[in-house]
Amino acid sequence: MLFFRVKSAQEVRALLARPVPRLAEETVGLFDAVGRVLARDVIAPAALPEFPRAVVDGYAVRAADTFGASSGTPAYLTLAGEVAMGQPATVPVRPGEAVRIATGGMVPEGGDAVVMLEHTELVGDGLIEVVRPVAPGENLVRPGDDIRAGERLLAAGHRLRPQDLGACAGLGITTLSVFRRPRVSLLPTGDEVILAEETPGPGQVRDINSVALAAAVNDAGGEPFPLPIVPDDPAMLRDAVHIALAESDLLLIAGGSSVGARDWTLEVLLGFPGAEALVHGVAIRPGKPVIVVAIGERLVFGLPGNPVSALIVFDQFVRPYLRRLAGEAVQPYPRTLSARMATSYASEPGKEDYVRVRLVASAEGWLAEPVLGKSTLISTMVAADGIVVVPEGVEGIEAGEPVTVHLF
Amino acid sequence: MLFFRVKSAQEVRALLARPVPRLAEETVGLFDAVGRVLARDVIAPAALPEFPRAVVDGYAVRAADTFGASSGTPAYLTLAGEVAMGQPATVPVRPGEAVRIATGGMVPEGGDAVVMLEHTELVGDGLIEVVRPVAPGENLVRPGDDIRAGERLLAAGHRLRPQDLGACAGLGITTLSVFRRPRVSLLPTGDEVILAEETPGPGQVRDINSVALAAAVNDAGGEPFPLPIVPDDPAMLRDAVHIALAESDLLLIAGGSSVGARDWTLEVLLGFPGAEALVHGVAIRPGKPVIVVAIGERLVFGLPGNPVSALIVFDQFVRPYLRRLAGEAVQPYPRTLSARMATSYASEPGKEDYVRVRLVASAEGWLAEPVLGKSTLISTMVAADGIVVVPEGVEGIEAGEPVTVHLF
Repeated sequence: MLFFRVKSAQEVRALLARPVPRLAEETVGLFDAVGRVLARDVIAPAALPEFPRAVVDGYAVRAADTFGASSGTPAYLTLAGEVAMGQPATVPVRPGEAVRIATGGMVPEGGDAVVMLEHTELVGDGLIEVVRPVAPGENLVRPGDDIRAGERLLAAGHRLRPQDLGACAGLGITTLSVFRRPRVSLLPTGDEVILAEETPGPGQVRDINSVALAAAVNDAGGEPFPLPIVPDDPAMLRDAVHIALAESDLLLIAGGSSVGARDWTLEVLLGFPGAEALVHGVAIRPGKPVIVVAIGERLVFGLPGNPVSALIVFDQFVRPYLRRLAGEAVQPYPRTLSARMATSYASEPGKEDYVRVRLVASAEGWLAEPVLGKSTLISTMVAADGIVVVPEGVEGIEAGEPVTVHLF
Repeated sequence: MLFFRVKSAQEVRALLARPVPRLAEETVGLFDAVGRVLARDVIAPAALPEFPRAVVDGYAVRAADTFGASSGTPAYLTLAGEVAMGQPATVPVRPGEAVRIATGGMVPEGGDAVVMLEHTELVGDGLIEVVRPVAPGENLVRPGDDIRAGERLLAAGHRLRPQDLGACAGLGITTLSVFRRPRVSLLPTGDEVILAEETPGPGQVRDINSVALAAAVNDAGGEPFPLPIVPDDPAMLRDAVHIALAESDLLLIAGGSSVGARDWTLEVLLGFPGAEALVHGVAIRPGKPVIVVAIGERLVFGLPGNPVSALIVFDQFVRPYLRRLAGEAVQPYPRTLSARMATSYASEPGKEDYVRVRLVASAEGWLAEPVLGKSTLISTMVAADGIVVVPEGVEGIEAGEPVTVHLF
């Protein structure tokens, strides 16, 4: 039997901040790239825009020709022509002249500003009245104003959002180098565990963890690989881990990590060459029996068999690691909501406590109402909208106290 | 030329709260169901758990046999046997007896509580010492404690999360009826617009909107269908809309909605039978030239051609509508972060203003720093982490004022 000191949640977070292996790159098209993580910087091959563009409907002018213009003393300019959309601007703007232009049109040579249509009047005979002055550069964008040629548009390690892909399209960049998704193997264990498709006999339960963790892995940018259920047998567990390690970047074992009679997981994992135990037990509630073992460059998490604990441990510890493993340089902003505690909650001292809460709207803003029921019940997670974290040293939260709800 | 009153953002939100068509159902397996929207309630076909389960490692006992037990005066119980994981509990707990059990094991007949291993000692001769009393029901869950048979586990209109799928697996529900994803056609328009793959000549720009909107549609639960670029020609636009409407639940036209010379979009849309103009112009910045037309049960949005405006209008108006169209009964909690404005910002009165901000950590928490640059530049969206909304009647935000950042 191996004994380890139970670690605090903060100690575990620090241990998991270790360097991650660099995953291979792959090339994806822009339409398949949202949510993927850039493997290389994106450098602008050209300027955006490549020509001066009007940002309003109106007239391209020489700004100096409009100085001092007002409703009382309008400036008069000669209409020299029109810019067709999608065409080169062929008619230049000479002193005293104006050229009709629509939003997005190419500002002709000589023009250094655009007067909005609303501030002009066509007074016949090809003459326009301008009732407000424009400054040089007003109502147009110059070449490179948006993105300069050679500029780093996006940095490696950035998770791609709709606007990032749009900017790439604007520059003619239609494929991107991204990291391949981390492969995350999910290994359910336990003599009592059967497939969700099967009918349990007395003492048997269906596998909840594989489907719930697969969804959570997907959501965090990983590619889940659910594996067959392994009974409580060290030799079979060793074989299953051996196969899983060869094919995955991260291995999550669910079950078999309580300090009970059948706790072989840690011993099996430490039997692999280069294995190092990082964590055996975390001072959290629910979820205490967590194992983390490094085998070479790869991590193996032994998650509690109880699905509530497994999901909470995933959220708190696996997800941030997985996002770094996916190549993400910066953790995303947490999805939180500010609320007040609806009822008082007493916490177990010496443990970081994850209180499942339901959000209720009130005249004073959101109320966080603790979900009743034993902490092992999956229905408490289904009924909850999120979690309030009670830090290790805090004994509880009073009704009415402000809290941050981490949304599911 | 048709004239419409520009509407406030709130008026547009109210108009878009109209009933949505009900999409067809499809059946998906649990591993493909995360993020999908339930088309029918999920009713528990059985209880969870189906048998009384221990939630700790220890001994199944009759609680009454432990009353008054302490370290000074332990209760002594005879070890009658052991429960094997995944097996029926064959050895009953008779008065004065204890049966060894692991977390998740089936509590034998007669047992009404479980004593934690930590509170016992095996004193030899098959006798155990219990140093703390347990109450009936302690450290076990009874059949149906988690989910009762016949209970509504999940309601139609719910977007499925990992824990919801886990609970379904636990009940043996392995497929679910969900709404098919709304099909959203994306129609780029404009004589100046070319494919991202092409090299623009003077006056031409690459299509940014299709790829950015496709990513945003995906993210909101829709299925994007990018269509070929349509030049500024009413007859071609009419044909393209006709084809798109037949195959989509929602149509987004990008470009062609400014009050400029080439503004045919509204007239073309109103030419369809049963067409009704809901919106032509919204008092927002950026993004004013927005069109919304209902054609029968379907909506068509005319988004500004400028990609910044198009993305912001999508976020503010299209996304909430799309989520309802997807069948979602409740809008998700907004992804926000509380911050303070880093510098003062002057807003244009009479418009809801969307200020792009970069988040900067400081000793006093997050600072929201407005991203400089003209509002039409896609680079301002790339540089931003989110948006601060300045309501219509507000003239600006002072440096240091608390703000809510809507994260991208």
